Amino acid sequence: MSDSPTNTLNTWVEVPKNSDFTIYNLPFGVFQNKRLSPRIGVAIGDKIVDLSVLDQEGFFSDMFLPEGVFLNESLNELIGLGKVITRKIRERVQDLLLEDNEKLRDHSARGKVMVNRKEATMLLPVKIGDYTDFYSSLEHAANVGKMFRDPENALLPNWKHLPVGYHGRASSIIASGTPIIRPKGQMKNPESNTLVFGPSKKLDFELELAFITGKSTKLGDSVSTADAEDYIFGFVLFNDWSARDIQAWEYVPLGPFLGKNFASSISPWVVTLEALEQFRETGPPQEPEVMSYLKCDKPHSFDIQLEAYIQPEEEKSSKVCSSNFKDMYWNVAQQLAHHTVNGCNINVGDMMASGTISGKERDSFGSMLELSWNGSEVVKLESGTERKFIEDGDTVLMRGFAEKNGVRVGFGELKTKVLPAK
Amino acid sequence: MSDSPTNTLNTWVEVPKNSDFTIYNLPFGVFQNKRLSPRIGVAIGDKIVDLSVLDQEGFFSDMFLPEGVFLNESLNELIGLGKVITRKIRERVQDLLLEDNEKLRDHSARGKVMVNRKEATMLLPVKIGDYTDFYSSLEHAANVGKMFRDPENALLPNWKHLPVGYHGRASSIIASGTPIIRPKGQMKNPESNTLVFGPSKKLDFELELAFITGKSTKLGDSVSTADAEDYIFGFVLFNDWSARDIQAWEYVPLGPFLGKNFASSISPWVVTLEALEQFRETGPPQEPEVMSYLKCDKPHSFDIQLEAYIQPEEEKSSKVCSSNFKDMYWNVAQQLAHHTVNGCNINVGDMMASGTISGKERDSFGSMLELSWNGSEVVKLESGTERKFIEDGDTVLMRGFAEKNGVRVGFGELKTKVLPAK
Repeated sequence: MSDSPTNTLNTWVEVPKNSDFTIYNLPFGVFQNKRLSPRIGVAIGDKIVDLSVLDQEGFFSDMFLPEGVFLNESLNELIGLGKVITRKIRERVQDLLLEDNEKLRDHSARGKVMVNRKEATMLLPVKIGDYTDFYSSLEHAANVGKMFRDPENALLPNWKHLPVGYHGRASSIIASGTPIIRPKGQMKNPESNTLVFGPSKKLDFELELAFITGKSTKLGDSVSTADAEDYIFGFVLFNDWSARDIQAWEYVPLGPFLGKNFASSISPWVVTLEALEQFRETGPPQEPEVMSYLKCDKPHSFDIQLEAYIQPEEEKSSKVCSSNFKDMYWNVAQQLAHHTVNGCNINVGDMMASGTISGKERDSFGSMLELSWNGSEVVKLESGTERKFIEDGDTVLMRGFAEKNGVRVGFGELKTKVLPAK
Repeated sequence: MSDSPTNTLNTWVEVPKNSDFTIYNLPFGVFQNKRLSPRIGVAIGDKIVDLSVLDQEGFFSDMFLPEGVFLNESLNELIGLGKVITRKIRERVQDLLLEDNEKLRDHSARGKVMVNRKEATMLLPVKIGDYTDFYSSLEHAANVGKMFRDPENALLPNWKHLPVGYHGRASSIIASGTPIIRPKGQMKNPESNTLVFGPSKKLDFELELAFITGKSTKLGDSVSTADAEDYIFGFVLFNDWSARDIQAWEYVPLGPFLGKNFASSISPWVVTLEALEQFRETGPPQEPEVMSYLKCDKPHSFDIQLEAYIQPEEEKSSKVCSSNFKDMYWNVAQQLAHHTVNGCNINVGDMMASGTISGKERDSFGSMLELSWNGSEVVKLESGTERKFIEDGDTVLMRGFAEKNGVRVGFGELKTKVLPAK
């Protein structure tokens, strides 16, 4: 793979300007269409490379892959083969797509290999074992603390000593394009302070990234920050849907439950760690000094621009915030080292989300809770429509991309429509 | 099945006095031994009925079961067939074991069907999708509140309005017999109030029961209290291992994480809801009145006696507490109705634990945290050995059984040894 912008890669595939899916990216996903059963592909431009056909045509024959590994309904078996193999597969695909390489370009099966992305339905890319959500943006944690606790002591005492996290619900993680239904539940009526039951009135998104593990550990073993990235296959956009009113009433003392577990949405293309390599950065300074098991020898932050949009029914979408993954206080290596320091085991296909990614400025806050300051202010959309939280019929879109020296690596779109409560 | 004690059932299998595994029980589990690969069996006395052999011999041929359903390494496929089928299977086994039924008793394959329990290794009975832990014992919640918050207002405001719960880690749920390793982590040194890293000094058990779901829902759907038991296949003993010092430092504001996710242990035999039918009871009164989605038309509590024992290395075991599942404030139907009222979906093989089951009296407290009142008092074992929390080399045992009118239905043993930190 190329780390250097001077080593420009060109492909024979037509890649639209500003496409997230360049020759430098090549994310993995699971797709189907009217003719094709679920299978694994790699995105480039407006096309999907059908890896199962490439495999049938013998393009991976030297790798001795398990039969049908690309005909799975999830990436789990594939990524469980390990990084040495998945990296080789991605490099092979990249090589085959290079402008001067005629092997696939001039092959009779080319038409069968290259599937139109528009005609494909993307499925949930992994069968998720356990899902963990962290809380690793200092600005987000401080905003929540200012709103609900003490503005002078917004961060709780543990926050700068460990990456706070909690377990979430894996069953309700859904693919982009699947609508969600507004959840019902118990909440306090803010006027009367009485307890009521009904549809949430404070439905919110959280702009997050999540990583997917590609390697297991045994119960009792720990992963060091130095080894952590060996366990990370790649990243997706993550919308941690939240019902703030349900959450506020239920969460003491054991954390969020029904305020979160009705749905989380993820983007369908898993961007590999390798594709993000050239966007690696040093994260914010950590003061006080962290414990030794959380210290890092190299940078583990990534310069990924994130955006959230609201699209009311029959209106166009408006960007409501943008933030950057590199500003996260706790990085992915620290999250994984912390998660396993007590011997907690991980499996291939676990998902670990970052927590809401907020920046310092108002327009970089990654949730409506923060953007409307818990409903005390309105967020204006381009059409003039106003929002405090998410309304029925709204579609929330998220985008994420890294861009540097003319190289773009993006996540595509995460899109979820909100349907009224049942 | 017999609900009436007058309808006594006798079996040709020798069942020792006080056996948990009577002809009235017939729990399902997954076992293997030196000769046999993993398979599904039913326990009776000191024997296991190998259901895969029964199936091969045609004893279920009228049920048209999927081929090899009893040769799975988990119960998931079997229980996913639905209660109509699993109830029929259990009734068939019960019928075959009746004293006067010669079909299996005098069959040439009898020796192959009946496996010695002593020679079998029990595996984790289900592949667990999502795991939820509730907090449904009023006495436990009040004890924790008295210790760490306000003795005058021990219960938090939400506690009597909803069954508080949180998501736990499914990957680290292990079968009885698998040792655990003392977890390490960040904690406050209570003397100096400084932050330290090291092995937990407050390792604790929690005496719980858990139910396993046998039916799925779609995202967006809810399960009523009236329908809830259709979704519950059966119960196991559950030891929710906890590191109190790690938990105390980390849990604000998002709940327990590393203080819990290093391990939870379960008993291997899943006692079906049908076997517990005759031990059904009305739970404690609920005041204030609960919301309508939490109201129940019939009793959903069960009179199950629970016990925890500590066995230090080279000593005999001492009972440290006993409590009863029927005293739980929130019942299983309410837990499941609450869990799904927001549309959260459940899958076959989800596990939902009760939370620590404590009673009113000191000797009925279901954790060392309560028994030693957070280490301020000692718990004396029979040998004279004293404990505040669980020490390296200790084995914690849990037992549970229902007994009425000469009928006994028990869970067998849940046994876990604690190894020193790595």
